[in-house]
Amino acid sequence: MAISIDRRVNGQRLRTLLGTWQRPGPAYQALADGLRALTRSGALPLGTRLPGERETADALGVSRTTATAAYDLLRDEGFLVSRRGSGTVTTLPPGSRDRAPASLGTTDDALVDLTAAAPAAPPQLAAACAAALDQLPRHLAGAGYAPLGLPALRSAIAERYTRRGVPTTPDQVLVTTGAQQAIHLLTSSLAGPGDRVVVEHPTYPHAIDAVRGAGARAVPVPVTLAGTDLDLLDSTVRQTSPRVAYLVPDHHNPTGTSLSAEGRARVRELARRTRTVVVGDETLSDLTLDGPQPAPFAGDGTADRHVVSVGSASKSFWGGLRVGWVRAHPDLVGALAQRRAHVDIATSVLDQLVTVELLACAEDVLAQRRRDMRAQRDALLAMLAYDLPEWQVPVPAGGLSTWVDLGRPVATALSALAHGHGVRVAPGTAFGVGGTFDDHLRVPFSQPVDALRHAVDGLAAAWAVLAGAPAGRVGAAQPALV
Amino acid sequence: MAISIDRRVNGQRLRTLLGTWQRPGPAYQALADGLRALTRSGALPLGTRLPGERETADALGVSRTTATAAYDLLRDEGFLVSRRGSGTVTTLPPGSRDRAPASLGTTDDALVDLTAAAPAAPPQLAAACAAALDQLPRHLAGAGYAPLGLPALRSAIAERYTRRGVPTTPDQVLVTTGAQQAIHLLTSSLAGPGDRVVVEHPTYPHAIDAVRGAGARAVPVPVTLAGTDLDLLDSTVRQTSPRVAYLVPDHHNPTGTSLSAEGRARVRELARRTRTVVVGDETLSDLTLDGPQPAPFAGDGTADRHVVSVGSASKSFWGGLRVGWVRAHPDLVGALAQRRAHVDIATSVLDQLVTVELLACAEDVLAQRRRDMRAQRDALLAMLAYDLPEWQVPVPAGGLSTWVDLGRPVATALSALAHGHGVRVAPGTAFGVGGTFDDHLRVPFSQPVDALRHAVDGLAAAWAVLAGAPAGRVGAAQPALV
Repeated sequence: MAISIDRRVNGQRLRTLLGTWQRPGPAYQALADGLRALTRSGALPLGTRLPGERETADALGVSRTTATAAYDLLRDEGFLVSRRGSGTVTTLPPGSRDRAPASLGTTDDALVDLTAAAPAAPPQLAAACAAALDQLPRHLAGAGYAPLGLPALRSAIAERYTRRGVPTTPDQVLVTTGAQQAIHLLTSSLAGPGDRVVVEHPTYPHAIDAVRGAGARAVPVPVTLAGTDLDLLDSTVRQTSPRVAYLVPDHHNPTGTSLSAEGRARVRELARRTRTVVVGDETLSDLTLDGPQPAPFAGDGTADRHVVSVGSASKSFWGGLRVGWVRAHPDLVGALAQRRAHVDIATSVLDQLVTVELLACAEDVLAQRRRDMRAQRDALLAMLAYDLPEWQVPVPAGGLSTWVDLGRPVATALSALAHGHGVRVAPGTAFGVGGTFDDHLRVPFSQPVDALRHAVDGLAAAWAVLAGAPAGRVGAAQPALV
Repeated sequence: MAISIDRRVNGQRLRTLLGTWQRPGPAYQALADGLRALTRSGALPLGTRLPGERETADALGVSRTTATAAYDLLRDEGFLVSRRGSGTVTTLPPGSRDRAPASLGTTDDALVDLTAAAPAAPPQLAAACAAALDQLPRHLAGAGYAPLGLPALRSAIAERYTRRGVPTTPDQVLVTTGAQQAIHLLTSSLAGPGDRVVVEHPTYPHAIDAVRGAGARAVPVPVTLAGTDLDLLDSTVRQTSPRVAYLVPDHHNPTGTSLSAEGRARVRELARRTRTVVVGDETLSDLTLDGPQPAPFAGDGTADRHVVSVGSASKSFWGGLRVGWVRAHPDLVGALAQRRAHVDIATSVLDQLVTVELLACAEDVLAQRRRDMRAQRDALLAMLAYDLPEWQVPVPAGGLSTWVDLGRPVATALSALAHGHGVRVAPGTAFGVGGTFDDHLRVPFSQPVDALRHAVDGLAAAWAVLAGAPAGRVGAAQPALV
């Protein structure tokens, strides 16, 4: 069909994406579960053409009957459609179309959604909206387009950097439609087809997508629980001459690690020496739960030709406000603003005015948010320790999630099973390239404790099925430990 | 520098972009005016490397002294910067950084800005915002991400299509961050490097930018005051096999023409027959000023695998609301939603709630808006007829601007001069590929009559300078004709 976007996977790629999909029980059901989970999570985008049943069987080492039965089941359920001349392509059943196609925090009441690590709005939001409406009339006589951002918001953001020790003027600030747009604009402006972009590995999935969307290649540098490997970052940047390096310096998503003060200084020096643009995504920087607030990624702010900071209202305030920003040299700010003109022209005036109000009371909002997230984190860790003692669950000092080591490469299978137990969760493979991290699961604690309780119950029940153990004990309600 | 985006123009391209820049007076000033206007309008993006002075002189047929003097003047003014090893690149003086880099309707009080054809907010907006705030609490417990759009807005948009005779279900609707994002998502999803996208010529500049941003090639099909040449559209689609054809069927921007009912049917049949996705941008469709409302581009809506509609709140309501939408087959809606996840994740919840409210009272808002725009159009046409009788000014039956034929290729020079007379205006070249349409000027009537009065005074004064005539008469205040 002319409208289908030309995407195919071959058998080998499918095997990589599926990871360890096998589990006790009928193989065709396990395979169908894996394929369904890949479709629901967006790892297999809608409209992707799957290999033929014979190729799939060969690649996965199963019988052709198994592959055919799995495809038939998914066709019956509406997850696959076969069209003459176009093969078999992924789709969604009509009833599930309103669900998010990727990790985007939907509100299907029957499910606890752990795919997004994003909290509810703070109680101060309503007052901030009311105050923003008072400011709105000043703007209504104009066309409403401020491609660089409203001057009041650019000033407020610049002042916040300055107060944190990074002297900043408004012309160093571009307001974007969320941090995601900042990442998209930076990667698509600075990198093109064939270019390399260094990313931490694992990392934020939509950053990998943005790099690929620009036609560039994501070059991974490992992050362990000890943090980003800075020696490898250094040698990778020098050997591969990337156009950009994308880092999450504070409460790294998903591992929860942070760069030390020395590590930050070293990264800035690397950027300066190699003239590589290093982007520090500080979306989670306000959410330090233990210990002192980390120092700003930009240092003293003087290296702004090579050290770029990205910030956002999504996690500090609310994701429904689509407001983010870039702190960079004014030349780069201008170039990004020109590019955005053909991406979305400008950011919502109303959302910008609300963000100005929230920045004015940010310390109050954030103090309460940190208290809430600390309580939710501690509750989640206690539940996991009790119900899933085999899992290795680190204690993140900030951010919104923990990066669980499952001990074996079953995250994709677990994610597929969990759906049937009332939980949507992204397998570790979503955070890596090439199907890695199937032995990890990112578990957010951004939801209230009762939702976390349901989520852990569902994960424990799915884990029991996966382990072949009787599901009874785990499915029974446990006393809440908070 | 590592941060500069790699853009260069050669002398030949510069000559094309400049069009007829010469005018009476010192040649270096005229050349500097042309280059400054290209930089301000975004035709020469910030950070573009210009050819050396010798190459520029040769390409433009001027002395090297003229080229050098023009470059020196722009360096003094802060529009050019020369760096060792990077040549001479475009920039903006620090004081002007807050201005929009492209046609985006800024609010420099000293200037009347005609670069954006976008009206002020309607009086109903305040009440719609208040009603939206009442709805907001329902959404605050969630993460705030609705990548397909809020269900209430998708339903309201689907109902509006259905009422207009195009049966539509919510799963055929994707809410986007403005119509511009819809165009960006469609072109970048359906076309890639080397692909062709058919556009009308002239057309909406940011659509050309979106096509180029996807690495695709814009293939122009001419539009005259008689409308889009459908015979040429037919043969071009058949000969070039484009991935997409982008049309503005109603009150075409910038020419003001509309497709007839037969023309629409013919385009739909072409889409179906050639399996080409034809996108109809209905951003201006609500703004019919004379005669009956045109029929929906989608016809009976059954060809939604190949006929895609784009709509927007920007012109019907206000540009500060960053809300647009796509009406398409659910498969394409799903694929576009997946792509947007790495572009900006979702659209502002608040803006979506405001748009729901405005759609509920759309007929009242639009009746008043049409009255206002009709009055402003008639006032503008009267002023132009009196003050600039040499110009051929068509009477558009809708939309927000008129496409003036200047009679000679001086639009770039006029635009440059107009800036000194208090008017920002986009030359016709902004609406074409390859520097064409320098004999045209798009003049919007989306601003109040007093602003239009100042704008016409400024244009007339600039025109007088260009014509070498004494500027006195035209500069004198004329009695307003409305």
